[in-house]
Amino acid sequence: MTAGMLNSIHSPADVHALSSSQLVDLCAEIRTTLLEYGRKHGGHIGSNLGVVELTVALHHVFDSPHDRFIFDVSHQSYVHKMLTGRAAAYTDPERFGSVTGFTNPCESEHDSFVLGHTGTSISLACGLAKARDMQVSASGRSGIGNVIAVIGDGALSSAIAFEGLNNAAEQGGNLIIIVNDNEMSIAEDFGGMYGSLSALRQSGGTAASNPFRAFGLDYRYVEQGNNVHTLVETLREVRDIDHPIVVHVHTVKGLGFDEAPGDAENGSDGCNQTNAEPHAGQCEANHWRNPDSVSDGMPDARKYYGAMAMASLESRFANEPGLVVISPATPGSNGITRDFRERAGSHYVDTGIAEEHAAAFAAGIAKAGGRPVLATSATFFQRTFDQLQQELSLNRVPATLLIFGAGISGTDNTHSGAFDIAMFANVPNLTCLAPTSGEQMLDMLAWATGPSEHGAVAIRMPGEQILELERAADVAFDPIERAEGHEPVVPAVDRAGDCPFKRYQILRPGRDVAVLGLGNTVALASHVVDRLSGGDTDDDSIGMPVPPVTATLIAAPQYSSLDEEMLSMLADGHRIVVTLEDGQLEGGWGEKITAFYANSRDAKANAVHVLNFGAIKEFTDRVPRERLNERYGLTADQVISRIRMAY
Amino acid sequence: MTAGMLNSIHSPADVHALSSSQLVDLCAEIRTTLLEYGRKHGGHIGSNLGVVELTVALHHVFDSPHDRFIFDVSHQSYVHKMLTGRAAAYTDPERFGSVTGFTNPCESEHDSFVLGHTGTSISLACGLAKARDMQVSASGRSGIGNVIAVIGDGALSSAIAFEGLNNAAEQGGNLIIIVNDNEMSIAEDFGGMYGSLSALRQSGGTAASNPFRAFGLDYRYVEQGNNVHTLVETLREVRDIDHPIVVHVHTVKGLGFDEAPGDAENGSDGCNQTNAEPHAGQCEANHWRNPDSVSDGMPDARKYYGAMAMASLESRFANEPGLVVISPATPGSNGITRDFRERAGSHYVDTGIAEEHAAAFAAGIAKAGGRPVLATSATFFQRTFDQLQQELSLNRVPATLLIFGAGISGTDNTHSGAFDIAMFANVPNLTCLAPTSGEQMLDMLAWATGPSEHGAVAIRMPGEQILELERAADVAFDPIERAEGHEPVVPAVDRAGDCPFKRYQILRPGRDVAVLGLGNTVALASHVVDRLSGGDTDDDSIGMPVPPVTATLIAAPQYSSLDEEMLSMLADGHRIVVTLEDGQLEGGWGEKITAFYANSRDAKANAVHVLNFGAIKEFTDRVPRERLNERYGLTADQVISRIRMAY
Repeated sequence: MTAGMLNSIHSPADVHALSSSQLVDLCAEIRTTLLEYGRKHGGHIGSNLGVVELTVALHHVFDSPHDRFIFDVSHQSYVHKMLTGRAAAYTDPERFGSVTGFTNPCESEHDSFVLGHTGTSISLACGLAKARDMQVSASGRSGIGNVIAVIGDGALSSAIAFEGLNNAAEQGGNLIIIVNDNEMSIAEDFGGMYGSLSALRQSGGTAASNPFRAFGLDYRYVEQGNNVHTLVETLREVRDIDHPIVVHVHTVKGLGFDEAPGDAENGSDGCNQTNAEPHAGQCEANHWRNPDSVSDGMPDARKYYGAMAMASLESRFANEPGLVVISPATPGSNGITRDFRERAGSHYVDTGIAEEHAAAFAAGIAKAGGRPVLATSATFFQRTFDQLQQELSLNRVPATLLIFGAGISGTDNTHSGAFDIAMFANVPNLTCLAPTSGEQMLDMLAWATGPSEHGAVAIRMPGEQILELERAADVAFDPIERAEGHEPVVPAVDRAGDCPFKRYQILRPGRDVAVLGLGNTVALASHVVDRLSGGDTDDDSIGMPVPPVTATLIAAPQYSSLDEEMLSMLADGHRIVVTLEDGQLEGGWGEKITAFYANSRDAKANAVHVLNFGAIKEFTDRVPRERLNERYGLTADQVISRIRMAY
Repeated sequence: MTAGMLNSIHSPADVHALSSSQLVDLCAEIRTTLLEYGRKHGGHIGSNLGVVELTVALHHVFDSPHDRFIFDVSHQSYVHKMLTGRAAAYTDPERFGSVTGFTNPCESEHDSFVLGHTGTSISLACGLAKARDMQVSASGRSGIGNVIAVIGDGALSSAIAFEGLNNAAEQGGNLIIIVNDNEMSIAEDFGGMYGSLSALRQSGGTAASNPFRAFGLDYRYVEQGNNVHTLVETLREVRDIDHPIVVHVHTVKGLGFDEAPGDAENGSDGCNQTNAEPHAGQCEANHWRNPDSVSDGMPDARKYYGAMAMASLESRFANEPGLVVISPATPGSNGITRDFRERAGSHYVDTGIAEEHAAAFAAGIAKAGGRPVLATSATFFQRTFDQLQQELSLNRVPATLLIFGAGISGTDNTHSGAFDIAMFANVPNLTCLAPTSGEQMLDMLAWATGPSEHGAVAIRMPGEQILELERAADVAFDPIERAEGHEPVVPAVDRAGDCPFKRYQILRPGRDVAVLGLGNTVALASHVVDRLSGGDTDDDSIGMPVPPVTATLIAAPQYSSLDEEMLSMLADGHRIVVTLEDGQLEGGWGEKITAFYANSRDAKANAVHVLNFGAIKEFTDRVPRERLNERYGLTADQVISRIRMAY
């Protein structure tokens, strides 16, 4: 356990009481603590290192929770947590992981919201301030004092942040927007606004072209954003201000990181290296740090299949001018490496954190005859829902969407991948594909980005389950070599315009019971069918040996329409149809199959008993995937037991 | 039919050939045509009157479709349509309605996209320009020349427009963004940016605080935005420009409207009046014009129930400082009248067209103890999907969402209300209510905005079906009186925290068949049950007299969870359960009931035969509701016939 001042900080009151020199000491100790925590536990260390002084100054000057801080995305709230009674979670290795990586009101009264998506802090702050002002008007008092949003320059590129800026001035009243400008997003900053920010930095905040003043906001610039005294002084001046103001603070992301010995070698994926110079193409370096213990060099499924997909596309760049990969600011985690981006040149566009623009931009490229490929997380696609409906699907443009991080997982509650099937599958005109192998993913990508006539296509990138299978089968060698060695095959279609991946595939024929696995769940489906045909002798729910069942194993490679022909055929000879999906049941895929059989005009189909397995409708927070699968009945034991009961 | 020059304009080539004086004559004729069309047919007349000269100048200077125009929202594309071979749709009353109110590539090669939602034009234009530039790099040529986005100042407040502006400069290359500044949104403009626009207008474009330059964009100002010669000159200067530029054009929305005799009296809902002065609180005046023939003074369901809801809330404003109605720019069509807004004072906030901000803003107010009520169209809530998941539902804040325009309807394909159930119902923690009467809506609103502990609540405002029923029953008198005369009743709950509207209601007990109607479909459910109990003697599908069935009639007032107790009870004594919903089946409500019975561990429940009725997954364009209901089997005849077949 790190000893020192942090142990004596139990609440913001303890920060208020510190002398000037103690503030400096505290910052130093926090920085050391963050570095050590990063090495041992990992996390968003770079952004937190950049706001050590800012956060200490905020808690020294303001009075939380009466004054409210809203940290945008809240990945940079570690220091805030240390100062609000949660220091042990960063100093005591046994308590690492006992707090989330984001703010959460369940943890502390000093956290107003659970946040993990970008750009909403200003709007949320406007809401808190509005309610405060109405309370004060009505009764002369409110439980809320100053309202302070802290937002990074990278987050400023996101749509809702602009809407917030535009509405803040209109609203009036006390509202302090701290723009933490560290000259970086997750990858490099992208957007014309960054020229203005740069001019403001260079002119000490006096440049004429000021995007904040253009939104009608008051403005102050602080060059020494890592000097706690300067910050304290500035914040004292704006405290209790009677109108909205932007305080533009220039900080250094990852400050102190390069001083720690051994860091330069840390990590092999380019995400843990550091560099004293910002903007040297090293931004992701500071974004997320893996703990030292993670050094097996094995990419996760996102990076692995992302790299395969990029390698497959790259081979076509020279001959296909319209083939463009678009990433809204998170390339690295999806296998879109810096090397790839440099080689891709104009075939790669980072839009900054701007998913909505990215989706409509893709629609524009596709309409002009190009073949855009938009890659981001399942959870971030939520931002594009309207563009998904309107610009992409209603307009039937051949854009390809690569959905990363989809499926049930142990993520925190703001980044769940369990909701995407219900979001994508119910949009008309949109083809949703769920590959069950790396090669099938490449085949789908080739079709989606190829010359045939079709609308937008979403590809749910294979998850860890598939990668585990492929590693076990020794086919998951280097993703680039693997992509280069595979000549994509697009299955033939009956009619032009049909999706070549519409048909489900019978992997093993049987009778009585059919087990249908969608995408990632094919592995589980296969286990279930194996175990059923072996005969289960240890099934406690039955209590006696049970005879083997030669079940039919089926892979469903898509979830936007039903293979009605196959489903009707199954009704002949199968009493039970089981659907497995790696996402929320409600609104998802299995329910459609259940409804198909119920609404069929064929009595045999009506008689089919469908059992659906998938996630229940809930937010989950850092619950390991295995435990969620247990909870949802998505284990071979539980599926078999249900089948036996219904049999 | 209006005679004149328009008859000789068959394509943009005919506009190129016009002399200066002919351009002026053409503008005058178009303006007269629009006014006459507005009186007879209705439409977005104000915005089109404002861009007559701009559109004529665009087609005179540029060469469509080689040069591409993207009209934001595209409600202002009537003039463009007149100049691209579709004039007869505006001059010949027999062909009124033969084109959509928005651009559509199916109509003309001069329309690039189907558009109806705000703010996407810049992103789409970036995409077209990007593909063009890559084609030119590769082969020296492209089918696309200049790319021109035309966006109104009202649309500029929307999130994605900012993202587009921020990305345009970064991209570089030819891109012309025409900001049509008529000093109005749908209602008044809201946002700090509008101060900057005003300063630019007043300074002839020279003001230092320039939001476009702040985004790194080149900029030009045109004060005489309704002078076709000035516009032609300016556009010639920017044609073939090698970098993105904003051309800020000052126009008068509705120019010429006030000159037409009799207009001042037109319409009784405040939406058809006009005023020569913009910004005199008359903005909606110019937004949408009903044809003269619509003068029965009967409000539609949106306006009617919206007015009821507002009246009910207004009575509480004096005592509840945190009760705030939020409207993202479309108050009038949802019964939030100008009078109400003025009386509401700080209890009403118009965020401009900024749905995402509005949703996060509501989350902030709710977190601070307030009770925000966010009102907008089902289709516009699509923009808030991520905030719906994260800021509102994950954070479990007591915000109320009023969903207007939900349900199957004859709208164009960009404003469908058939998709909202699948969007809202599958979000965890969100309570979704579907009132079946005006009074129930008020009760739900009272609970949602009341003191009890709950998360976000969406209320699907009653549709035309309910209003027709209530008018027939003579209870739909003046909405304000009706609201004032109703003391809201919140049903008791078993446990604190339960939703008092969770339970389905048995309206008429029966057996064998249960017909469940969700919200708006209760009227149809009631018809079906009536007809079944009468015995159908004319059922062609059976071909013989059929015996009466005393079916059970059930109203479902919510669609975010199942009343499992009721559903289980129904399994005893009912062989068939019918679900009716006024929206898309896939991902919707009925499928959940089907899945409930299939996955039950009770054999009786498994044996229930569920029949689901609702919309199929498709985009529809101006197909009357009656025809859609026929297509979806949502008529009493068809539902009865299916029940008889399954019986």
